[in-house]
Amino acid sequence: MADMNRRRISILGSTGSIGVNTLDVVAQLGGRNAFDIAAITGNSNVALLAEQAVTFGARLAVTADDKQYATLKDALAGTGIEVAAGRAALVEAGQRPSDWVMAAIVGTAGLAPTVAAAERGADIALANKECLVSAGELFVKAVADGGGKLIPVDSEHSAIFQSLEDDQRHAVERIVLTASGGPFRTWSREQMANVTADVARAHPNWSMGLKISIGSASMFNKALEMIEAKHLFNVRPDQIEVIVHPQSIIHSMVGYTDGSVLAQLGCPDMRTAIGYALTYPDRPKLDVERLDFAKLARLDFEAPDETRFPALRLARTAMDRGGVQGAVMNAAEETAFNAFLEKRIGFLHMADIAEDVMEDMVGYGSAITMDDVFAADAEARRRAAEAIAQKEMAA
Amino acid sequence: MADMNRRRISILGSTGSIGVNTLDVVAQLGGRNAFDIAAITGNSNVALLAEQAVTFGARLAVTADDKQYATLKDALAGTGIEVAAGRAALVEAGQRPSDWVMAAIVGTAGLAPTVAAAERGADIALANKECLVSAGELFVKAVADGGGKLIPVDSEHSAIFQSLEDDQRHAVERIVLTASGGPFRTWSREQMANVTADVARAHPNWSMGLKISIGSASMFNKALEMIEAKHLFNVRPDQIEVIVHPQSIIHSMVGYTDGSVLAQLGCPDMRTAIGYALTYPDRPKLDVERLDFAKLARLDFEAPDETRFPALRLARTAMDRGGVQGAVMNAAEETAFNAFLEKRIGFLHMADIAEDVMEDMVGYGSAITMDDVFAADAEARRRAAEAIAQKEMAA
Repeated sequence: MADMNRRRISILGSTGSIGVNTLDVVAQLGGRNAFDIAAITGNSNVALLAEQAVTFGARLAVTADDKQYATLKDALAGTGIEVAAGRAALVEAGQRPSDWVMAAIVGTAGLAPTVAAAERGADIALANKECLVSAGELFVKAVADGGGKLIPVDSEHSAIFQSLEDDQRHAVERIVLTASGGPFRTWSREQMANVTADVARAHPNWSMGLKISIGSASMFNKALEMIEAKHLFNVRPDQIEVIVHPQSIIHSMVGYTDGSVLAQLGCPDMRTAIGYALTYPDRPKLDVERLDFAKLARLDFEAPDETRFPALRLARTAMDRGGVQGAVMNAAEETAFNAFLEKRIGFLHMADIAEDVMEDMVGYGSAITMDDVFAADAEARRRAAEAIAQKEMAA
Repeated sequence: MADMNRRRISILGSTGSIGVNTLDVVAQLGGRNAFDIAAITGNSNVALLAEQAVTFGARLAVTADDKQYATLKDALAGTGIEVAAGRAALVEAGQRPSDWVMAAIVGTAGLAPTVAAAERGADIALANKECLVSAGELFVKAVADGGGKLIPVDSEHSAIFQSLEDDQRHAVERIVLTASGGPFRTWSREQMANVTADVARAHPNWSMGLKISIGSASMFNKALEMIEAKHLFNVRPDQIEVIVHPQSIIHSMVGYTDGSVLAQLGCPDMRTAIGYALTYPDRPKLDVERLDFAKLARLDFEAPDETRFPALRLARTAMDRGGVQGAVMNAAEETAFNAFLEKRIGFLHMADIAEDVMEDMVGYGSAITMDDVFAADAEARRRAAEAIAQKEMAA
């Protein structure tokens, strides 16, 4: 039964959009005949988590939600699959020996398990944004010290990674991050002020999780990606350009000192970037739609509007300030995002709150250890909650 | 004076569009302080050739035109620069010791000097199309046997070369050659029937030589590039796609088995591809215009029309048939091109004549030696001349 040639992998966040696509790629590339799944983790959708664990023969299944422990345990009774629940168990999942870890837990919750996997030297396929946004230098160092590779999974960063020539880093002039512009690309601020989460989540090109869909509408997603790009590719903030490209076909680009721009293109399907991360540096053979340029007919580009989408401006501020400002921006925005979902604040208030908390916390603490980051994150959430309460009272 | 660190290079065809741009790049990268020019060659523009030879301190200047020998000799009197003329002298220029040779002599005349350079092991920056179209296997073998590198300079093939991952050749699914579509992209066959060379040479994006401009209008250029791509990148004919992209910003692309498409983009400026070929695998720092995506605003794509542009169909026929059919297609088209310039035949007749001669010469000879290629070339020219004379009589 035990094929020693099977690659041992873990999937942190297997029930979300990235996780489901990762398992689709795993299935395409041989499933349990080719991969030995050390651990999978999910949140409250334990029915799907249990089904995945059985289908792919995972050794450990973890739900982040303590209250779901019994349900998951029952669902996997008699399968021999180990079951655990809670935050500490997520970290345990990251620590379980494996060669490759998909880090796809959404939000700050993904930080500790991913760092645990990085520290033990696993190759990290990074879909979680917070590891780099909140703890960029520390996280990059953790991966380097562990000795594993860091392979981005965001379509944008995967595209940049694929367009970067290893031996020509010195000739990189700029990173061009493409942005769909989201559903409000052509909307005025007045129109955006009153939208609800249901409207905001309707992404024009990609089928994604709720957090990322709303983040695309506010371009907060792109702001996080700018900061990620800085850490992933070790470039200066002024080398990072954002260009709105509504069709999301060019996933991002790298400009060189000879005037060349290299780009990676593809249909909007996360499986290409996931497959690339899984088999890197080899390219897998995947059953995904191929680009048909005649059918595409056209690709458009426009400059982003930082007045309507202030998140982009905030990202530049966070990069310029450094320290814990990335963590602060992210935590404040995540708090504001939850308040927006609860209809406590409006769509545009998310950026207002992030900016206020960032201003408020200029010079707050340092980012020497992960605990500094967690402290800044917690403090930013506390201050964002206050700011949200004030907005509610004012309304 | 003699800096032993200077790179010794030769430029075959230095007075044409590619040659002039090559010298501009050489000047940008240090001129005679950085490069030792072993030889430059030109055709009838000996005034420019002499000026280039003096400016860049070339050791040998060759005019292909015997009648211009005295003029060139006079222009370079007292400079110590060696002067020669004629076909044999072009080959001699190719043979002169140098590390890198820009092969930019237009047409079949470029074949012998380039092969001479390849055989002695120089790295070949290939701008001449005929080396691969007429003598693909033989030329690739000559370069391989000589031990030099073959680096394409056509913007399309340079883009493919830049988008090809050396260790992922097995994962290449397709080559996507972009074509501007030329000035007649939207014209009917009826409209094209009566155009003159002056109209046809007006390329929408690139400033190029006459032969290439007309070849762009008829898409014969793209037909030649399809055959070049087959030999350069060792792909099957059915792996080569052509897509019309009027803005000429995406210079070409490579599609992989994971659904990824890698592309190289740039302003329409040959110096990027020339600079890349000159310093490969390093990228130089060049003063060329950078792409501004917001200013570009849009990129369009459409399927090519093989009824209006039969050259594309002929390229597939030539690739499928192999042997000397590439040489035959090229020679017949070059002959017809000259007749078109002389207003002896119409624009559409160029493809008719190429097709007739190709049909006529199915099964003609083999392509075992360069002499076989030259024989097929000569025979195709003879038969094309006959076909042209018949068209004239019928008109």
